[in-house]
This record gives sequence, structure tokens and C-alpha cells, in this order.
Amino acid sequence: MSSGSDSGTGGARRRPVTLRDVALAAGVSVATASKALNDQGRMTAETRTRIQDTARQLGFRPNGLAQSLLRRRSFTVGLLTNDTYGRFSLPVMAGISEALVDNGVSVFLCNVEDDPRLGQLHVDAMLDKRVDGIIATGKRVDRHLPVDLAGLGLPVIYAFTQPDPGSIAFVSDDEGGARLAVEHLARLGRRRIAHVTGPETFAVVHQRARAHADVLAEQGLDPMPALMGPWSEAWGHEAIARLFDGTGEAPDAVFCGNDQIARGVIDALRERSVRVPDDVAVVGFDNWEIVARASRPPLTTVDMNLVALGREAGLTLLSLVDGTRVEPGIRKLPCRLMVRESCGQPPGG
Amino acid sequence: MSSGSDSGTGGARRRPVTLRDVALAAGVSVATASKALNDQGRMTAETRTRIQDTARQLGFRPNGLAQSLLRRRSFTVGLLTNDTYGRFSLPVMAGISEALVDNGVSVFLCNVEDDPRLGQLHVDAMLDKRVDGIIATGKRVDRHLPVDLAGLGLPVIYAFTQPDPGSIAFVSDDEGGARLAVEHLARLGRRRIAHVTGPETFAVVHQRARAHADVLAEQGLDPMPALMGPWSEAWGHEAIARLFDGTGEAPDAVFCGNDQIARGVIDALRERSVRVPDDVAVVGFDNWEIVARASRPPLTTVDMNLVALGREAGLTLLSLVDGTRVEPGIRKLPCRLMVRESCGQPPGG
Repeated sequence: MSSGSDSGTGGARRRPVTLRDVALAAGVSVATASKALNDQGRMTAETRTRIQDTARQLGFRPNGLAQSLLRRRSFTVGLLTNDTYGRFSLPVMAGISEALVDNGVSVFLCNVEDDPRLGQLHVDAMLDKRVDGIIATGKRVDRHLPVDLAGLGLPVIYAFTQPDPGSIAFVSDDEGGARLAVEHLARLGRRRIAHVTGPETFAVVHQRARAHADVLAEQGLDPMPALMGPWSEAWGHEAIARLFDGTGEAPDAVFCGNDQIARGVIDALRERSVRVPDDVAVVGFDNWEIVARASRPPLTTVDMNLVALGREAGLTLLSLVDGTRVEPGIRKLPCRLMVRESCGQPPGG
Repeated sequence: MSSGSDSGTGGARRRPVTLRDVALAAGVSVATASKALNDQGRMTAETRTRIQDTARQLGFRPNGLAQSLLRRRSFTVGLLTNDTYGRFSLPVMAGISEALVDNGVSVFLCNVEDDPRLGQLHVDAMLDKRVDGIIATGKRVDRHLPVDLAGLGLPVIYAFTQPDPGSIAFVSDDEGGARLAVEHLARLGRRRIAHVTGPETFAVVHQRARAHADVLAEQGLDPMPALMGPWSEAWGHEAIARLFDGTGEAPDAVFCGNDQIARGVIDALRERSVRVPDDVAVVGFDNWEIVARASRPPLTTVDMNLVALGREAGLTLLSLVDGTRVEPGIRKLPCRLMVRESCGQPPGG
């Protein structure tokens, strides 16, 4: 037996150690070795432990493909996205990967772009590989990926992309996030809180604008405009010109729909010698750190907790794969406010 | 035969179509069906075509796992990175995925962070899954991933991360990129071209600084400083203060080590009423579009062509997997200059 063991571990071996090598070294049949390593079959605890120890000593690596055929699980999950570059889907994907990898599951990443033909090709490839389930994610919560995931007979989860009816989906609570921002400004004593946000073609723009209007009403503050435009710094500059050069009373706070707009707003205010936060407080949305931290002053902003959202999506998919029943529906996960220096202190604080 | 075919296609079928279903419907043995679908074995062309047509009509999907066991290829490739979020590895990974997916190969994406334990875990998982090869990529060209990929007996490619000696690697030609920038400024008639760049702990900082000094000498221009500091907007502001408040003659151009520094440089110049590009031309590095386009004026900058670099890496790995011999060594791929508005026109132009 020791000679078998030696031949397996000595020298500059390139050939992978097989189940047969383990069986030889342990002095048992290949079938017994297989059962021992899969925690199946009947044998004494001593025999099982000895075989497992031998396998470990030899550096035996079970063939994952063959194993998953037996167990009818591939321990792989397909991740479909149309946004491998994007700031939003990246943290979501990082969270998903984290949850899956921690549980020994590998991720097939497929970029379907906005091309239904490519989408179908990738879904087919995932089915060929017998993935245990699929997570769909994308660059917009209000757009559907160009794939049909209904009726595949596989667990499917949607994360930060528009779900099919009756499916399980995770999105951020944008209204809640906007409430956090506007309530923070009201608590600091701001009374004329304007909203400068993205294009009206985005669902989240309306959700956040509604929350802005609601909080103003709840707090007994005068209604203030919600200006919609591109998601850009340039729009932040233009919006400040409209708010300060118009006939209405200028705001003492601006809640912005993203951090780029907020960056433009802060720069535009500085260039007209309006002090931030003393004269006007500014809040962003996204907590895009590289932008939020480089703002002068650093930007207070809403964080959508997208890594946590991805992690939830990944763990829920694993539950589904394990056969747990999960209620269908859209889960809205809470945002949090990342406080930096662009809002100042409460009055007298 | 027709009844077999009907039972396979009719009704609300959930069970996947098996090779046995195909064999039954085509009136052949399972072994013959398998050979026909794998283009193996001896049979008439008519029989082979009939079986393949039957499989198509039934929607038969061959079991990828079982197939790859037979062919001893998994048609999957492992992609290791310590930078799933990053601006640099993202385009590299997009290029890699593109090359692989176009060739029917799936990608296992694994984030090893900077943790050797996690790295080993992921490499083990890839070996378990019998990947055909591994690509390593990361956030820095001059740092090695925390994994040992030598001696795995598998094709390995390094892309935008420090390679093992004797391996195959793809990196951007940073010296060449810096030459493009400084030669562009010289061609536009700039005579005092300063360099404001990142920390001296980065290898690329020295490569680019050397190219800057070389081009100044070649063009007969006076030597100008290379100021090293953080990769941040704030450093751009500080560097402009040093260059313009010091005793030396102020520059008429600044070549910056990244787009964030360039953004700070442009903002600082505007705030001291120095006109860009009229008084001072500015070039960045990275072509980080969201920053380069939002600069006022929009930023001329060096693009490292990272998507193309990733694509090359992916295609080269596939060649290796197919058994093609590839010379080891580090391939430096050319950068290109993305001209926008921050450098102006040539004199009299």
C-alpha cells in the first residue's frame, strides 16, 4: 500500500490523481472509495476516514463534472446582464458573486447587451451547461432584459432589472431613499428644498420626485420645483442658472437625482459665489464614491446598498435551488444616507 | 414512429427531451442517435440527417456536461481578477468575454481580491470544473494576483496584471501612450510641457515620466518637472498651485497621469482665470469617458485600448487551448490619443 501512496505523491507528477489511485493507496475498491468520498454507502467510520485521509494526502481532486451529473446539480448559476460596464450592475453583481461563491457555487457571466438574438444564445448556452438557476440584472430597473426567462423550468431571480409578472425580484426602494434625503434637509432647517433630477423617461425619476413632494407637504414646507433633465454635470449647471436667475425665490437646498448632477450643482454654486453648505445644502443620489468624495465639499448622498441587494438575490436563488418555496413579488430593499459635508449642521448645531 | 414524435412535442411538456426520445422517434438505437448527433460512427448520410432533423424537431438539447466529458474539454475558461469593480479591469474583462463568448466558450468569473486563501479556493474550484484555461487580470499591471498559476498544467494568460516569468502576458504600452500625448502637445506648438502624475510606487508612473522627458529632449524643449502625487482631483489642484505660484516659468501645457488629475488641473486653472486651451493645454490618461466628457472643456486623453487588449488575451487563450504554440513573453499593445477640446489648434491653425 505504501508503494502505491509513494507513486502517487512522489516526483514531478503532472497526471491528476484519480479515484483509482486513491482506491489503490487505501487498499479498497474504486466503488468503495467513491462511496467514502461522497459520504454514501455502508462502511465503518474508520474505513471512511482512512479513505478520505488518503485522498487528501494524495491531493485527489474529484471530477466536478462527473459529480454534478450524479447529483443532478451543476453548482453553477447563470448571471445575465446588459451592463457589464455599469456603475449600477457592478455592485449588484459583486454582491451576487459573493453570496454564490461563499456557498461553493460558480457564476457564468453572460452579457446580453440589448440584443434578443444574443440573449437567446446565452440562455441556450446556460441550459446546455445545466445551470441550477439564473439571475438577471441590468442597467435600468424599469427595462426588461431582451430574454424570455419564463417557462424555462429553472429558478430565476431578477435583481435591479424589470421582472416578469409573478416572478421574484429585488430592487432598491427609491422612494424611501428620496425621503431620507429630503427629511435630512428638513431636519437641518432647510425650508426651500428644490429637486434637480434625471429624464422623465425613467420610472425612478417619478418615484423620487413624488417622495420629494410628499415630504415637503408633510413637513409643512412650500412646494418647490422638480426640474428634470439629463443625468449629467452640465444639467446641474443649467438647473442652477434656472433656479437662481429666475423670478422665484432661490432655494436653500437642492436634492439631486444623481451624484453627477450634484457635482455640477456644487460647481455652479461655487462659480456664482454661493456657499455650500452655508447658503445652499446639496444632497446627491448613488453614493458614487469617486465623484462624491472629489466634490468640494464632499457630497452627502443616498446609497442604494446595491452590494447587499445582490447578496440577497444570490442567497434567495440558492434557497430556490435547494427547493425552498419563496413567495413571488418585488422586494424593495432600503437605501441609506451617506452623510459627508455638503449639508452642514442643524441650526444652532 | 409518428406517435413517438407526437408524444415528444405535444402537450405542456416539462421533462427535457432525452437522447432516448430522439432515438425512439427516429427508429434507431440510442448509440446510433448519439453517434449521429456527434458526427461520429458509420451510417448513411440520409440516416445521419434524419436523426439530426428529428433531434431538432423535438427540441433536443445535448447535455453539455456529458458531452464535454467525452471530448475532454469543458468549453469554459476561468477568469481571475482582484478588481471586479474597477475601471481598468472592466473593459479588459469585457474584451475577454467578447472573444470567448463569440467562440462558444463560457466564462467563470472569480474575484480573488487580495487574499491568497480566497485565490487558492477559486483556483481549486476552477480545476474542479475542468476549465480549459485561465486568464488572470487585475487592477495593477505591476502587482501579481495572490495566486500561483504556475505548474497547473493548464494554459494561462495574464492580462493587465503582473505575469509569472516565462508566461504569456498582455499589457498596454504606457511609454508609447505617453509619447502620443507629449508629441501631440509639441506638435501644437507648446514649449513648456509639465507632467503631473500619480504616486512613485506605480511602475507606470515611471514609464510615462521617462517618455515625457525623452520626448522633450528629442524635440529640443527645455526639461520640465514631473510632479508625482495621489491619483486624485485634489492633487491636480495642488499641483497647479505649485506650478503657478512657484518661482519657475509657468507651463503652457500639462500632461496628466490620469483623467481625474486632469479634471482637477482644468478646474484649478479656470479658478485662477487661466484659459484652457488658450493659455494652457491639458491632456489626460485613461479616456474615462464620464470624466473626460464632463470636463470643461472636454478632455483630450490617452486611451489604453483595454477592450482590444482583453480580446487579444481571450483569443490567444483559445489558441493555446486548441494546441497552438504561442511564444511566451509580454506583449505591449499600442494606446491611442482621443482628441477632444482641451489642447486647441496648432499655431495659425
